[in-house]
Amino acid sequence: MSWQLSAGDLPDLARGATLLGTGGGGDPHIGRMLVERVLGGGTVTVLDPDDLDDDMFVIPTAQMGAPTVMIEKVPAGTEPTLALRTLEEHLGRTADATMPIECGGINSMIPLIVAAETGLPVVDADGMGRAFPELSMETFAVYGVHGSPLALAGERGEQVIIDTGTDNQQMEWLARGNAIRLGGVGHIAEYSMTGADVKRTAVPRTISMALAVGRAIREAREANRSPFEAIAATLSTTLYRHVRELFVGKITDVERRTTEGFARGRAVVSSSEPDETDDLEISFQNENLVARLRGNVLAIVPDLICVVDIESGEPITTEGLRYGQRVRVLGISTPDMMRTATALDAFGPVAFGLGEPFVPVESGG
Amino acid sequence: MSWQLSAGDLPDLARGATLLGTGGGGDPHIGRMLVERVLGGGTVTVLDPDDLDDDMFVIPTAQMGAPTVMIEKVPAGTEPTLALRTLEEHLGRTADATMPIECGGINSMIPLIVAAETGLPVVDADGMGRAFPELSMETFAVYGVHGSPLALAGERGEQVIIDTGTDNQQMEWLARGNAIRLGGVGHIAEYSMTGADVKRTAVPRTISMALAVGRAIREAREANRSPFEAIAATLSTTLYRHVRELFVGKITDVERRTTEGFARGRAVVSSSEPDETDDLEISFQNENLVARLRGNVLAIVPDLICVVDIESGEPITTEGLRYGQRVRVLGISTPDMMRTATALDAFGPVAFGLGEPFVPVESGG
Repeated sequence: MSWQLSAGDLPDLARGATLLGTGGGGDPHIGRMLVERVLGGGTVTVLDPDDLDDDMFVIPTAQMGAPTVMIEKVPAGTEPTLALRTLEEHLGRTADATMPIECGGINSMIPLIVAAETGLPVVDADGMGRAFPELSMETFAVYGVHGSPLALAGERGEQVIIDTGTDNQQMEWLARGNAIRLGGVGHIAEYSMTGADVKRTAVPRTISMALAVGRAIREAREANRSPFEAIAATLSTTLYRHVRELFVGKITDVERRTTEGFARGRAVVSSSEPDETDDLEISFQNENLVARLRGNVLAIVPDLICVVDIESGEPITTEGLRYGQRVRVLGISTPDMMRTATALDAFGPVAFGLGEPFVPVESGG
Repeated sequence: MSWQLSAGDLPDLARGATLLGTGGGGDPHIGRMLVERVLGGGTVTVLDPDDLDDDMFVIPTAQMGAPTVMIEKVPAGTEPTLALRTLEEHLGRTADATMPIECGGINSMIPLIVAAETGLPVVDADGMGRAFPELSMETFAVYGVHGSPLALAGERGEQVIIDTGTDNQQMEWLARGNAIRLGGVGHIAEYSMTGADVKRTAVPRTISMALAVGRAIREAREANRSPFEAIAATLSTTLYRHVRELFVGKITDVERRTTEGFARGRAVVSSSEPDETDDLEISFQNENLVARLRGNVLAIVPDLICVVDIESGEPITTEGLRYGQRVRVLGISTPDMMRTATALDAFGPVAFGLGEPFVPVESGG
């Protein structure tokens, strides 16, 4: 069933998308602000993937770049639509809808900007079911849709089209290079596909799920209930069934550097419980990749590792991590379609050079 | 008048083009070898610019990258034509001819590869009248033709299209980034234009001039005449009227580094004359930029600074410079169309961050 999304939904959507962004996916406030600016009092039509005609043509849109840079460099707002138009012109075919490529503070919002500007509907699905740092890490790719051709737009109207055939990693490599030369951030349209492709390859209903989770956190907070329990209750009826509290404590160290167009680093969480003397260590590349306690993996990609404020349940991105924050670290199971052998090759531990195998968060350490 | 170029012309053409490449423009042996491979016993039609119909459509083709890398990384040979085809498809228009963008060991040859593969003729002209390190440094650009859209092809069939509108420097910046990510070298098609544009903006007859100079050097050598005098005599009837011997000596220092996709450095030439105790210093960025003696400029971009073997007159690229080589350093005047104020803004001293103003080599130090 299609539904209408309005500006009033954006704070909850941004909050939920930031949680699912698992530390990455960009700053929720900037994303929200950009949509509000173009949406005004209007609405965007959100299409359920099951309702798509098989021959409908969908062009996903997104922003790429290191979150460290995204915070500094607010886009003009016209770039994502320029990327879509550039790809349409290159393909000689106009889009019937746009769609996110990932969940996150920015990239759940970019397609809404495009939708508000163009009148196109947005498909309630994406290709990561969370955020990942690289454009090749897509369920779209795992299930046979190529990212190429990709169109990239810059703030001075620059248009770049990249076609690497079936090689999505080379596409990522070249697109990243262009984004770096465009100042660290580029806006893209890629993984164009049919409605049938969406049904086969996308993680379904992640916009409505982000909205529901974001709303649940807020409502629990307002009613003085546990936001953590609200998150778990909301996700229990979705494809993300298992929510586990991995650790509670205080951020005592954050190390972060922006290299090669990515924000890489680690955060250390120290327990305030006297009987827990060991620290939790979280490594990230834009997104949280692995959480380790005493050298044991508690959660690892592609499962979600989410850091939230201990009281309010507000999700904290890797860019937002600060010394002294009191946080709760959650592990959330990803859908089964993201845990197949092919999926793990694309965005499991090995894709990030991690030594440990994937262990589902619900059965882990 | 159009004429036919065959494999037998290639050694002379490569030699002359390398001289005009003024230290850059790529390795003449690799360039020649690539053309020989596709040309076989066939010929390429070379068109005089005056004979072009005004509405003819010309797409120049070239290789871009640091010469240090070009030597290591021999292209498959199919990339330049792929770049041309990519641009044709993007523009929805097929080329009637191709053309060099510069003179040089590689880039005088690349359009011949395309011509041999496609059957297209090559226009006897180019956009630099020598070699320059950046794609924005074109007489095409100075006289109003935009480089965009540019198509870039990689050895694994990668295709990139870049459109920065009228901003040729941003085009260079993005294309350079892609070439770096493609391993240091990319093949390009850019500055597409009409026959009327060619007549208005290109430096005419640089292929036939390179062939004539290369042949004159060889014939002088074979007849035990001075190759230097042969070069001067050949150029005296062209737009490159003045040839001046700047210095004679031995290479005593070469400093070279490949950064940001360019080969930068300097060479020191020490005189063997007892009364000349000062050294000539040549600075280069792919190409020789300035020759200084006792702090005075003897020659500076866009005039040509050419290092040739003291005996054979064989031109030596910046990559070929070695300690102990005995060399003659020549300064050659560029055509008037390359010395206007607008031209000097694009590829004069200021474009390379040099402090000295342009001084014509025929009136210099």
